[in-house]
Amino acid sequence: MGHTVSSLATLVQGEVRGASDRLICNAAAIESAGPDAITFVLDESHVSRLEACRAGAIILNSKIAAGIAATEHTSLIVVADPHAAFQQILPQFRKIRGKPTRGISPQAYVSPSAKIGEDCYVGPGASIGDEVEIGTGCDIHPGAAIGPGCVLANDVVVYANAVLYQDVTLGDRVIIHSGAVIGADGFGYRFTDGRFVKIPQLGTVEIHEDAEIGACTTIDRGAIGPTIVGAGTKLDNLIMIAHNCELGKHNVFASQVGMAGSCTTGDYVRLGGQVGIKDHVRLNSGCMVGAKGGVHKDIPEGEIWIGYPATPEAEQKRLVFSLKRVPEMRDRVRELENQVKKLVKQIEELQSQDEARKAG
Amino acid sequence: MGHTVSSLATLVQGEVRGASDRLICNAAAIESAGPDAITFVLDESHVSRLEACRAGAIILNSKIAAGIAATEHTSLIVVADPHAAFQQILPQFRKIRGKPTRGISPQAYVSPSAKIGEDCYVGPGASIGDEVEIGTGCDIHPGAAIGPGCVLANDVVVYANAVLYQDVTLGDRVIIHSGAVIGADGFGYRFTDGRFVKIPQLGTVEIHEDAEIGACTTIDRGAIGPTIVGAGTKLDNLIMIAHNCELGKHNVFASQVGMAGSCTTGDYVRLGGQVGIKDHVRLNSGCMVGAKGGVHKDIPEGEIWIGYPATPEAEQKRLVFSLKRVPEMRDRVRELENQVKKLVKQIEELQSQDEARKAG
Amino acid sequence: MGHTVSSLATLVQGEVRGASDRLICNAAAIESAGPDAITFVLDESHVSRLEACRAGAIILNSKIAAGIAATEHTSLIVVADPHAAFQQILPQFRKIRGKPTRGISPQAYVSPSAKIGEDCYVGPGASIGDEVEIGTGCDIHPGAAIGPGCVLANDVVVYANAVLYQDVTLGDRVIIHSGAVIGADGFGYRFTDGRFVKIPQLGTVEIHEDAEIGACTTIDRGAIGPTIVGAGTKLDNLIMIAHNCELGKHNVFASQVGMAGSCTTGDYVRLGGQVGIKDHVRLNSGCMVGAKGGVHKDIPEGEIWIGYPATPEAEQKRLVFSLKRVPEMRDRVRELENQVKKLVKQIEELQSQDEARKAG
Repeated sequence: MGHTVSSLATLVQGEVRGASDRLICNAAAIESAGPDAITFVLDESHVSRLEACRAGAIILNSKIAAGIAATEHTSLIVVADPHAAFQQILPQFRKIRGKPTRGISPQAYVSPSAKIGEDCYVGPGASIGDEVEIGTGCDIHPGAAIGPGCVLANDVVVYANAVLYQDVTLGDRVIIHSGAVIGADGFGYRFTDGRFVKIPQLGTVEIHEDAEIGACTTIDRGAIGPTIVGAGTKLDNLIMIAHNCELGKHNVFASQVGMAGSCTTGDYVRLGGQVGIKDHVRLNSGCMVGAKGGVHKDIPEGEIWIGYPATPEAEQKRLVFSLKRVPEMRDRVRELENQVKKLVKQIEELQSQDEARKAG
Repeated sequence: MGHTVSSLATLVQGEVRGASDRLICNAAAIESAGPDAITFVLDESHVSRLEACRAGAIILNSKIAAGIAATEHTSLIVVADPHAAFQQILPQFRKIRGKPTRGISPQAYVSPSAKIGEDCYVGPGASIGDEVEIGTGCDIHPGAAIGPGCVLANDVVVYANAVLYQDVTLGDRVIIHSGAVIGADGFGYRFTDGRFVKIPQLGTVEIHEDAEIGACTTIDRGAIGPTIVGAGTKLDNLIMIAHNCELGKHNVFASQVGMAGSCTTGDYVRLGGQVGIKDHVRLNSGCMVGAKGGVHKDIPEGEIWIGYPATPEAEQKRLVFSLKRVPEMRDRVRELENQVKKLVKQIEELQSQDEARKAG
Repeated sequence: MGHTVSSLATLVQGEVRGASDRLICNAAAIESAGPDAITFVLDESHVSRLEACRAGAIILNSKIAAGIAATEHTSLIVVADPHAAFQQILPQFRKIRGKPTRGISPQAYVSPSAKIGEDCYVGPGASIGDEVEIGTGCDIHPGAAIGPGCVLANDVVVYANAVLYQDVTLGDRVIIHSGAVIGADGFGYRFTDGRFVKIPQLGTVEIHEDAEIGACTTIDRGAIGPTIVGAGTKLDNLIMIAHNCELGKHNVFASQVGMAGSCTTGDYVRLGGQVGIKDHVRLNSGCMVGAKGGVHKDIPEGEIWIGYPATPEAEQKRLVFSLKRVPEMRDRVRELENQVKKLVKQIEELQSQDEARKAG
């Protein structure tokens, strides 16, 4: 099922350069696009990747198009926002699966005391506990387990086999991916008589509107009050958010981040993959931590920290730059020692001649 | 639903200072407690956090109370153990959900050859394999999968969607959180003819009494014998315990720890978050590793190691301290080089004058 | 149920030294083998571990056997390949569970539009979505969720509670362990008007023949095209493979590796535990990264890199060696400064005497 370059250009209100009747049957990234595929150039940084590009059509902006000509094999479509245009075209070449058929599977379990809103899907094997309240337009995929007392707002999606323990609340449009576990007990023990005795974790988890929680990410319930994920915050896969943490709005954490108990963040905080944050640390709004960083103190607003232990970026870069030169520095110190030894001898000589002269 | 300060004090056998008829409707941590809430001071280290505290009542010990007065807005309850007292009071303000209603859900699958003890709960979608034996008082939550031949002692809890592969054994009161996978094949291959051929993993996993296994933690089955988690050991979320490891008693591992194959630990070993342990390493009783540490050799009893590669704490701290001074040291070396260059010249001058003098 | 040493030797075509009628009732690793158990020596590196060995029988090769005598308590079985022989003997002492009974559980959900081949097992609580195609001889364990449009070839195993999102394809003999999540949305957002807006992830995941995916490992679907895991590649537990990655054949990644988006690997690439790879990095064939390494640039074919930031092994070792000597180097610099200070004084003295002499 193909589309001509001109029909695709019309779809995105773009200007065609080169052949407009070429048939396009697929959409792909620059490197993988073949002669029957359309691709796009995000910005200047991607121009160099065009060299070996074999795509039949390329979406780009007028600035980049100024430096590139259509060829016998490749047409251009010039638009204001190539990424948006590509996103608009891509579905033409993909099977887009709609939401699952509405209704509650006879193979789901729904507690008699649960309330489920209109226009919801509850898949086979899903389990909805006592006193759960689910709004309208929600999708609870197969095998997902919603513990007693949970409250889901509207248009929430819980993917297959994700788990909410009791009394978790999810805001509008929250997405919980498969394997995520929300509201397991925080890791709290009291050491008594040679053993660790569990401290009851009596708080909950609140995930606010538009947040998205990645596959196999775990967010523990608070010990006393709620663990909170702020509105619009996006957590990638395999992340650990420990009990009592309170994340602000529009944070973005890459996968495998680990955040120990009682940390708090402002808004727009960004963490790279595998970052670790010590308990009770405050990450202020707009700060960032580079991948694999290990943070053990508060980060001021807007700062970028990297390294383990993490420090401000400039400091760390200076440090890493210096450390790389340590082997060379060892050579220089050795050379200095030799020179100084020689100087010591020479001076002794001069001094002894001096003595001799005085004596003479 | 509120309680007066005096009624709460009675509950914990504490002594009231300040207003005793104040109505308390919630319990919270120091920072989040409002005027209608009660909070507690764990120990001296928390006293400074009281400054901005707006709580209506504070539980503290007599030593700390000696330095603090009740005010118009805040009553004090003086007890011997503030944490324990708070834990006793907290449930007054929380919905405490009891164990699920006993019985086997008609939507669970139970193999005809499985034996389930009295007073158990098996939730909808749970699956109990052939020849499984489950003791009394166990909770198998929705969607949990118990493989053939598993043996669960008494009062075990397996949360929603956790998985036990075949022949795993769990001791009394073991808790397995959601998404945990116990007994998957160890990661063992033999490289033959250009490909990795699976080595059958014919051991099992034994988790001894009172151990607790966090959400999405994975404990692989042994290749030959069992992988073992000792009594009372607590593993946080997203931890990897590879095949053939044998953990001692009362270990505590923070989240995202990774332990490679055939490691062993003594008792009371503590690992910080994201620590990695090389295969075949021995961690002796009472040792600790700081967060993000990378351990590639045995750690003697009771030692604290940190860093990557991990070393004894004092050594690592000295190293980190030194490394931080490397940029400054580079400046000093450069300064020394200049000075020495100057000295060399001066000496040459003195020597040539000397020569001249002799010649003259 | 025991076997004599001679019957076990016959099974593996080995030569007995010492008593051949000794009864062996178990198989174990060197350290854990008791007097009724058989063990094996993999190679020279394991010989030293034999010292405290109490096994009733030891399998070894003739080279190692040349240096070891059978004793009153221990018989030897000499073979060409001790590991293979042990693997052959081990099942005699283990309960080997066959594949589950063929057939579709009445407690599974299978979409009317799904096609399931002959000789398959679909366990209770498993869910097979619309238009799924499953080949012959596959095992879909309890609670596994296979999303719409997935295609599974022959002899595929999907363990309990693993999840495939829509349109994922698995090659022959692929194994997906419990808790793994294949095909969740890639982590892609566009920052617009102060919020992160989800970029639809319209690609899929392809896992080629003989690949094995560990427990709780997550492989995200591509944004545009497929995320690919090559034939024979083995991924341990709790690994993150982000969207658009393309892994070659016969890669081996240890647990908790995190690979950011759009990375590619050649064949026979090996990554240690907790390694992190920056997005868009290329790992060429045969390269290796040591545990906990943090890689942010391409690695040439066959190289071994370690450290954070990762560099070629020799370079990193030289660096680590130098860094360890920094504290000592600080002492040497301090000593040099003292010496130079002294030299400066001595020269000033010599110079002033010189001046005095001239003046005199």
